[in-house]
Amino acid sequence: MKTSRKGRLTRLLVPTIVLGLVSSVALAEGNPEKTLSAADVQKHADFVWTLVAAFLVFFMQAGFAMVEAGFTRAKNAVNIIMKNLMDMSMGAIAFWAVGFAIMFGATKTGWFGTTGFFLSDFAKDGDPWTLAFWMFQVVFCATAATIVSGAMAERTKFVAYLAYSAVISAIIYPVFGSWAWGSLYKGSGWLEGLGFIDFAGSTVVHSVGGWAALAGALVIGPRIGKYVDGKARAIPGHNITLAALGVFILWFGWYGFNPGSTTAASTDIALIAVNTTLAAASGAIGAMIMSWIMFKKPDASMTLNGVLAGLVGITAGCANVLPLSSVIIGFIAGVIVVLSVVFIDQVLKIDDPVGAISVHGVCGAWGTLAAGLFNSSGVTLKIITVQLIGIAACFIWVFPTAYILFRVIKATIGLRISKEEELEGLDIGEHGIEAYPDFQVHPEAGSVKT
Amino acid sequence: MKTSRKGRLTRLLVPTIVLGLVSSVALAEGNPEKTLSAADVQKHADFVWTLVAAFLVFFMQAGFAMVEAGFTRAKNAVNIIMKNLMDMSMGAIAFWAVGFAIMFGATKTGWFGTTGFFLSDFAKDGDPWTLAFWMFQVVFCATAATIVSGAMAERTKFVAYLAYSAVISAIIYPVFGSWAWGSLYKGSGWLEGLGFIDFAGSTVVHSVGGWAALAGALVIGPRIGKYVDGKARAIPGHNITLAALGVFILWFGWYGFNPGSTTAASTDIALIAVNTTLAAASGAIGAMIMSWIMFKKPDASMTLNGVLAGLVGITAGCANVLPLSSVIIGFIAGVIVVLSVVFIDQVLKIDDPVGAISVHGVCGAWGTLAAGLFNSSGVTLKIITVQLIGIAACFIWVFPTAYILFRVIKATIGLRISKEEELEGLDIGEHGIEAYPDFQVHPEAGSVKT
Amino acid sequence: MKTSRKGRLTRLLVPTIVLGLVSSVALAEGNPEKTLSAADVQKHADFVWTLVAAFLVFFMQAGFAMVEAGFTRAKNAVNIIMKNLMDMSMGAIAFWAVGFAIMFGATKTGWFGTTGFFLSDFAKDGDPWTLAFWMFQVVFCATAATIVSGAMAERTKFVAYLAYSAVISAIIYPVFGSWAWGSLYKGSGWLEGLGFIDFAGSTVVHSVGGWAALAGALVIGPRIGKYVDGKARAIPGHNITLAALGVFILWFGWYGFNPGSTTAASTDIALIAVNTTLAAASGAIGAMIMSWIMFKKPDASMTLNGVLAGLVGITAGCANVLPLSSVIIGFIAGVIVVLSVVFIDQVLKIDDPVGAISVHGVCGAWGTLAAGLFNSSGVTLKIITVQLIGIAACFIWVFPTAYILFRVIKATIGLRISKEEELEGLDIGEHGIEAYPDFQVHPEAGSVKT
Repeated sequence: MKTSRKGRLTRLLVPTIVLGLVSSVALAEGNPEKTLSAADVQKHADFVWTLVAAFLVFFMQAGFAMVEAGFTRAKNAVNIIMKNLMDMSMGAIAFWAVGFAIMFGATKTGWFGTTGFFLSDFAKDGDPWTLAFWMFQVVFCATAATIVSGAMAERTKFVAYLAYSAVISAIIYPVFGSWAWGSLYKGSGWLEGLGFIDFAGSTVVHSVGGWAALAGALVIGPRIGKYVDGKARAIPGHNITLAALGVFILWFGWYGFNPGSTTAASTDIALIAVNTTLAAASGAIGAMIMSWIMFKKPDASMTLNGVLAGLVGITAGCANVLPLSSVIIGFIAGVIVVLSVVFIDQVLKIDDPVGAISVHGVCGAWGTLAAGLFNSSGVTLKIITVQLIGIAACFIWVFPTAYILFRVIKATIGLRISKEEELEGLDIGEHGIEAYPDFQVHPEAGSVKT
Repeated sequence: MKTSRKGRLTRLLVPTIVLGLVSSVALAEGNPEKTLSAADVQKHADFVWTLVAAFLVFFMQAGFAMVEAGFTRAKNAVNIIMKNLMDMSMGAIAFWAVGFAIMFGATKTGWFGTTGFFLSDFAKDGDPWTLAFWMFQVVFCATAATIVSGAMAERTKFVAYLAYSAVISAIIYPVFGSWAWGSLYKGSGWLEGLGFIDFAGSTVVHSVGGWAALAGALVIGPRIGKYVDGKARAIPGHNITLAALGVFILWFGWYGFNPGSTTAASTDIALIAVNTTLAAASGAIGAMIMSWIMFKKPDASMTLNGVLAGLVGITAGCANVLPLSSVIIGFIAGVIVVLSVVFIDQVLKIDDPVGAISVHGVCGAWGTLAAGLFNSSGVTLKIITVQLIGIAACFIWVFPTAYILFRVIKATIGLRISKEEELEGLDIGEHGIEAYPDFQVHPEAGSVKT
Repeated sequence: MKTSRKGRLTRLLVPTIVLGLVSSVALAEGNPEKTLSAADVQKHADFVWTLVAAFLVFFMQAGFAMVEAGFTRAKNAVNIIMKNLMDMSMGAIAFWAVGFAIMFGATKTGWFGTTGFFLSDFAKDGDPWTLAFWMFQVVFCATAATIVSGAMAERTKFVAYLAYSAVISAIIYPVFGSWAWGSLYKGSGWLEGLGFIDFAGSTVVHSVGGWAALAGALVIGPRIGKYVDGKARAIPGHNITLAALGVFILWFGWYGFNPGSTTAASTDIALIAVNTTLAAASGAIGAMIMSWIMFKKPDASMTLNGVLAGLVGITAGCANVLPLSSVIIGFIAGVIVVLSVVFIDQVLKIDDPVGAISVHGVCGAWGTLAAGLFNSSGVTLKIITVQLIGIAACFIWVFPTAYILFRVIKATIGLRISKEEELEGLDIGEHGIEAYPDFQVHPEAGSVKT
C-alpha cells in the first residue's frame, strides 16, 4: 500500500517537475550588481507600494469575517468564517485559472479577455509586473466575492456557497471588471472608453458584490423568524465588539484599496488617503446622526455600517475629488445607508443580516455618481451620464446573472439548509462543531428576539 | 416632500460642485512620462513610507478599542467601541477643520497657528505633501484623543464624550503640539526652539492624552462600587484575550508611530524600529517581574500595560538613544507603570479602569525625561532642564484646560449617566443594544467582584 | 526611603549615560542635503521594505496568540496569551543579547557565530543595516519560539515556559539558523554552502519550532482526559472565531515573512507574494477536502490549519518555484496536515492541542523537500539530497537539544502544573485572574467533551 501511495505521488509530481524545467527561463534573475537608474528604483518602489497595498486589501478579508460573524448569531459563527475563508481561497484559485484572463486578457469581442489563463502571460514573457498586478487584483476580486456571504448568512448551504464563490470570481466579477478596468493591463473596456470614473471600485467591486448579494438574498428568502405576521423583527448580532474590530480592520485595509489603486509609488496617494479618511469619518457621523434621529439613540450597528458606507462612497472618486467633497460624500453615504437598510429590511422585506446590499450595492452606486458630481476638474452632463451608464450596466450585468446562478444552484445542489439545521445553527449541521463550546448560549438565541 | 428633499440636496451639492470647479487647478497632475531624477523617486518613497506609517498608526485605534473593551465589563462594551470609533471620526473632522491649522499653521503670536483651516493650504498651493503630512498628523491627534475614553469608561455620557473629543482634537492637542512640533511644517514652536526632544510624542501625544484622562477621571469620579468603605476593589475586565489582541495591535501600530515620525524614507528608521522593539519587550518583562514581586503572581493586565509603558517610554527618545538604553528605558517604564497604577488606584483613589493615566501620562513623562538622560550624543544639564520644562508645560496646559472643559460639560449637557444606567450598563442605556446577546452574563457582572 | 530609591535609580542610570556618551559617534547622522544618487534611494527603499516586512512578521505574534487561545479552553486563555506575549518579549532580549551573535556573527568553528553580542557590531561601525537586519531577524526568531506554546498548551508551568523561550531564542534557533542563513550577514553556513534552499524558513523557522514542540509535547505528556482507555478524545477550542481571526492575521503577516525575505526592494517580491497566496488558498482547499472525505463534514479547525500548512509549505520555495507549483505544493500540504494531525493524535498518541507539530514540523519538512522537487531552474538528485540533508540536520539538532532542555527544566524548576491547577485552569492558578469573568463557563468545560 505504501509503495502504491508513493507511486501515485510520483505520478503527480513528475509532470510538475518537467513543467518547472521547461518554464525555468521565466525566472531568470536580473543582475543586481549593474548600475541602478532612477527609473529602476522607481520600479522597485512601485512594486513595494503595490504589493504592500495588496497585503492591506487582503487583510480586509479578516475584517469582513469579523463584521459578518459579529453581526450574526453565535450558532452560525463557524459557518460564516468558513465561508469568508473559502471565498478567498476558492476565489484566488478561480481568479488565477480563469478570472484574471477574462478581466485583463487581450480581447477579441470587446466584452471580455481571452488570454492569460493560469497566469500564462507570465510564463511567456517572465515580466514580474504581471505577477504584482495579479496580486493586487486577486484581493479585489476576493472583496467582491466575500460581500455576498453576509447577505445570505445563517441559512445558506456551505457547498452552495462554494459553487457561487467560484463562479463570481471566475466570471461575474471579471466580466464587469474588464468593461471598466480592462485597459490597465492588456484588455480594453468599453465603459472606460466612455470616460467612466471608478478609480478604486465603488461599482467594479462593491456594487458587483452588492447586487450579487441582492440576488442571493432574494432567491434564498429570509431567515426563519425574521418576518412574523408581515413585520420585520431584529435578530441581533452575537458580538458587537468583534464586528467593531472588523470595521476597524476594513478601514485600515481600505488604505490599501484606495491609495494602492495608483499601482505606482507617487505623490497622488496622499490625496487619496486623506479623502478616504475624511469620508469614513463623516460616514460614521452621518449614520450616527441619522440613526439618532430615527431611533432616538446612536445605534452602533448603523454607525459601524456608516464607516463602511463612507468608505464605499469615496472609493470611486477618491483620486478626483477634493477633501471637502469627501466629507460631504461620506456624510451623505452615512445617511443613505441608514435609510437603505431600513427600506430594504422593512419595506422591501429582504432579509440582509449585515446590511451588505445597502453598504456595498447602494452606497457603491452613490459613490460612483458622486465621483462625477464632485469631479474636481469640472462637472459636465456627459460625465454624469457616463457615471449613470456605468451604474446601470453593473446592475444589468450582475443582478440577472447572479440571480440565474443562485436559481441554478437551488435547482441542482440546493441553496438552503433544512429548517431543523437553521434552528439548531449551521455550525453543528454543516461543520460538526460549535464556535464557543465553553460558554452557555442563551436558549432563545436560536430563535428571534423582539 | 420628495421634491423638497431633492431640492435641499441640490442646494447642498451645487456650492460644492462650484468649489470643485474653482479649485480644480489644485489637482493638476504632473506628467509621469518625464525623466525621473533620484530626488523624484526619493520623494515618492517618502510619500509611501509616511503614508504606510500613518496607516499603521491609524490601526492603533483598533488596538485601543480592544484594550479598553477587554479591560472593562461586558455590559459597557458597545459604548466603549462607539467612543473609540467616534473620537477618531469626530477628531478627524475637527483636526481637518481647525486642529491642523492651530498646530501647524503660520503663527503670529508664537503660541499657535492661524492659517490652513479646512486644509486651505492645499487648496492654495496644491502641494501634495500638505496632504501626506496631514494624514500622518491626524492619526496622532486621534491617538491622543482616544486615551481618555479608557480612564472615563463605564460611566460617561456618550454625548458628553463626543463634545470632549471635538475640543481636544480641535484645540487642546494642537496648541501643545504647535509648541513642540510646529516648525515641522509652517508654524514655529517655542518649546522646540529651546531644544526639546520628543521625537514621536511621549509628551506631545501620550502625556497630553494622559493628563486629559486624569482631569476627566477626577471630574467624573469613580464607578459605583469601585471604592467601598474607602478601600479600592478590583473590577475585572470582561475579555483579557481581546485586551491582549489590542496590545499586539498597538505594538504593531507603534512601528508606524515611532519609525514613521521620520516622515522620510531613510536609514534612520532602523534604529527607531529596534529601539521600539527592545523597549516594548523589556517593558513587558519589567512589569511582569514587578507584578510578580508585588502580587506573588505574574499579572496579565500589568504585563500587557507594561508593553504599552515601554512603548510610550521610548517614543520621545527612539531616534536619539542606543539599543541598550532602550532596554533600560523600557524596563523602568514597566516597573513605573505597576507602581503608578497601584498608587493612583489605591492611594490617590482615582478610578482609571484601564490604567490610561499611568501608561500615557506618567510613562509619557518618564519617556520624555529619559530621552534627555540617555541622549546618545551627550547629556547636559540644559537638555535635562528643557525636557523637564516640556513635561511641566504639557501638564500646565493640558490638565487645567481639560479640567475646565469637563466641568463645563458637566454643568451644561451633563457628564455622567444615571446610577440606574450605570448599574444596568451603558450599552442598553446609551445605545439600546447588548454586545453579546447570545451569551449569559453573570448576574454579578453588573456589580463589583472582590 | 524616597531618597534611597532615587539613589539607586541614579546608580542605575549613570553608567548608561556614560555609555551613551562613549558610543555617541555611532549615531552621527548623514547629511540629507547632499545630492542623492539612485543607489542612495534604492538603499532607502530597501530599508523601508525590509522594515515594513518585519512589522508584518511581528504582527504574526498576534495571529499565533489568537489561534492558540481560540483552539484551547477558556480557562487557559490568559495563560496562552501571556506565553505568546512573553516569548516575543523574552525572545527579543535574548536574541539581542546572544542569539543574533550566534546566528550571524563571524565564526571560527563554522558551526555558529561568536561576534556581535548585544548588537555590538552596530556600536562598532554604526552601519544602520545591522539594525534593519536584526529587526527582520528577531521577528523570525520569535516566530520559531512561539510555535511551541501551542503544542504544550493547557498544562505547562509559566516559569518553565519562560526558561524555554529564552534558550530557544538564544541558542537552539540561532545555531541551526547559522548553518542555513549565516552568510546573509557576516557568518558562514555549512548547509547553505551545500546549496540548501530554504528561502524564508520552512525548515529554519517552522521545522525548528515544530520539532521543539514535538520534544516538549513528549516530555510533558498529554492533558488530563485527553486519552481515556487508550482512546483519543477531542477537546474543542473555546473560540473558533478568534482562531480564524488568528489565521487571517498569520496569512497577512506571512506577506512580510516570505516576500520580505528578499531584504531588498526588488521586482522579485511579486512572484513570492503570488506563490504565497496560491499556496495558502490551495492549502485551505486541500485540508477542507481531506477533512470532508475523512470526517464527512468540512472541518473548520482542519481547514484553518490547512491555510497555515500551505503557507509553511511554500515558505522554503516561494522564490524558486512557479505559481502552478505553489498550487500543488499548498494542496499537498493541506492534505498532509490533516493526515499528520490524525496520525500524531490517534496513532502516536501525542497531545498537541493546536496541531503545531504537524503544521510547522511536518509541513516545514514537506515545504523544504518541495523547494527542491519543484525548483523552477531544474531538479537534480544533488538538490534533493541536499534538501533531505537539511531536513535531517534540523531534526537531529533541534529534537534532542529541546528534549534535553525540557528534561532539565522538568528536573529543576518543574515543567508541569499540578493536577488540581490543570483541572481548574491555568488562568487562576498561574495568573490569578479569569479571561472572561462576566460570562458563565460551562461546568464541563473544565473537563473533556466527547
